[in-house]
Amino acid sequence: MRGTVLYGPRDVRFEERPEPAIIQPTDAIVRTSVTCVCGSDLWPYRGANPITQPTPMGHEYCGVVEEVGGAVKNVRPGQFVIGSFATSDNTCPHCRNGYQSSCRRREWVSTAQAPRLRIPLADGTLVATPEMPSDELLPSLLALSDVMGTGWFAADAANVKPGVKVVVVGDGAVGLLGVLSARQMGAERIIAVSRHESRQKLAREFGATDIVAERGQEGVARIKDLTDGIGVDAVLECVGTNESMQQAVQSTRPGGSIGYVGVPHGVELDGQKLFYTHVRLHGGPAPVRRYLPHLIELVWNGRINPGRVFDLELPLDQVAEGYRAMDERRAIKTLLRP
Amino acid sequence: MRGTVLYGPRDVRFEERPEPAIIQPTDAIVRTSVTCVCGSDLWPYRGANPITQPTPMGHEYCGVVEEVGGAVKNVRPGQFVIGSFATSDNTCPHCRNGYQSSCRRREWVSTAQAPRLRIPLADGTLVATPEMPSDELLPSLLALSDVMGTGWFAADAANVKPGVKVVVVGDGAVGLLGVLSARQMGAERIIAVSRHESRQKLAREFGATDIVAERGQEGVARIKDLTDGIGVDAVLECVGTNESMQQAVQSTRPGGSIGYVGVPHGVELDGQKLFYTHVRLHGGPAPVRRYLPHLIELVWNGRINPGRVFDLELPLDQVAEGYRAMDERRAIKTLLRP
Repeated sequence: MRGTVLYGPRDVRFEERPEPAIIQPTDAIVRTSVTCVCGSDLWPYRGANPITQPTPMGHEYCGVVEEVGGAVKNVRPGQFVIGSFATSDNTCPHCRNGYQSSCRRREWVSTAQAPRLRIPLADGTLVATPEMPSDELLPSLLALSDVMGTGWFAADAANVKPGVKVVVVGDGAVGLLGVLSARQMGAERIIAVSRHESRQKLAREFGATDIVAERGQEGVARIKDLTDGIGVDAVLECVGTNESMQQAVQSTRPGGSIGYVGVPHGVELDGQKLFYTHVRLHGGPAPVRRYLPHLIELVWNGRINPGRVFDLELPLDQVAEGYRAMDERRAIKTLLRP
Repeated sequence: MRGTVLYGPRDVRFEERPEPAIIQPTDAIVRTSVTCVCGSDLWPYRGANPITQPTPMGHEYCGVVEEVGGAVKNVRPGQFVIGSFATSDNTCPHCRNGYQSSCRRREWVSTAQAPRLRIPLADGTLVATPEMPSDELLPSLLALSDVMGTGWFAADAANVKPGVKVVVVGDGAVGLLGVLSARQMGAERIIAVSRHESRQKLAREFGATDIVAERGQEGVARIKDLTDGIGVDAVLECVGTNESMQQAVQSTRPGGSIGYVGVPHGVELDGQKLFYTHVRLHGGPAPVRRYLPHLIELVWNGRINPGRVFDLELPLDQVAEGYRAMDERRAIKTLLRP
């Protein structure tokens, strides 16, 4: 089969790769129905993470189980499944605490931009849908594999509850779905930080009540203006730069919370400054597995439609163009069909 | 009157100072029954904070109201009161959210190592006891002004709940009272990090179940040994150095919480490292005012005896020796009687 491999900055190739096969009895092989490019794929694509060797790409997937190892009990061939970008046994102490993305046996999925992939720890990683989904549900189910679960975790980590005021920093797919998550959790006011008209529009459709186009200190001042100088109860930091983190910290009221899910690049927190802000900080790789059953139910019942973040759809063999479109911000998120 | 003034590293003087007087109608004048030296006073005493001019010292106090300004309604002359080291109006949005130490009108109390002091925002800062306390209650009531409230906040910020496993980093008065607080909140296991026999003993009396004498990486390894490699649910960081913060971060399980109350000196947090630990971080200057009514009740009814952290008692005019004894770790905490 052919799969996606990153060779260096902006050098994505779709080339011959070995067929995946069961290695451990806890593995499953999944035929990818749809996959996509993640905002976090752009870090190595742009050279922010060094590429020392040709690196298979892709960690978002949903599809049909083709084969399972002898020890797999919870999923069977023919089922439609969604899994997290982080595998988990779902039984270790960290998993039982709800942090499956810190599972003691965690592996990072990294071969999903391909027609088939091997998923280790299938029992604890994959969740089956009630039945075979219709084609129109596929984008939303795919979004649960990472971006929707990550936006949801950002809101959860920021302690979003009914009635609170929220800021979402970042208008990528995760930020937009952070808006959707905050709305689902009952936030009263949701201020989305975005400079792009099409993204502002989607943010409003997902539930944003206000848009702030300014960044950095100007953005902070604007948010303070909108909140009687107090700051908000909850900030979802969905970018990962030092500037966005500082904006998040300064937009939060004392005792308020930041849920940060943008993979930090160059983020440095001065302990003493943080101390005097009184903010709460929680984040990390989203424990998507924890949220999958609930989010599948919300999608299945038509309560949420996170697949709307996909505004470009390409055949998988045009994956390189999918990266380019996102890099140049021509697309929010690219869906790929094998 | 005479009061305490810091002139430079290790240069504490007890010298003539102006008598405090009502300046604002919201002020009160308090005659200090007892005061004390704080661990945080040692930062400037040791030269870690630069002293650019003679600086009055002291922020822990309890005593009898002598005089109030015309706008003061909640306390009256003759009442015995305790107040926080941070003044608060207790009505602004931050106060209503429970973060009185981030009050919009906050001032830092800084003249308490003296026989009398002026307290701004008396109505929102001072809390009266039910009646005049007996002499033996004074040390415990004094502890509520800062160290007990700060230990309590550390435990609260670290989400200590019945049944959880806790580590307390720091065996100063705040750390020891963090142990006491965690015990009051129902922690099942409390691991105190301490190398000093007398402090270990008091930690055990306050409720510590285990003692770890090792610091840094060795300390982390020992804590992991004690918790099946998992780490604990809650860490109280009561020191404020980079080493102690890193020990705290590495001792916490994914999804666990750190309550940090040691004023950070040289603490730098790498965003990406923090991200992958999945820890929760919350701290700052303790909102002591929030806890005062409850803590006064606990002391009044004999349920807690935080005054036991005072292991040296001196007349106020020997305050310089009080600093020396704590600096040299001959005393945990020095109580001063005017």
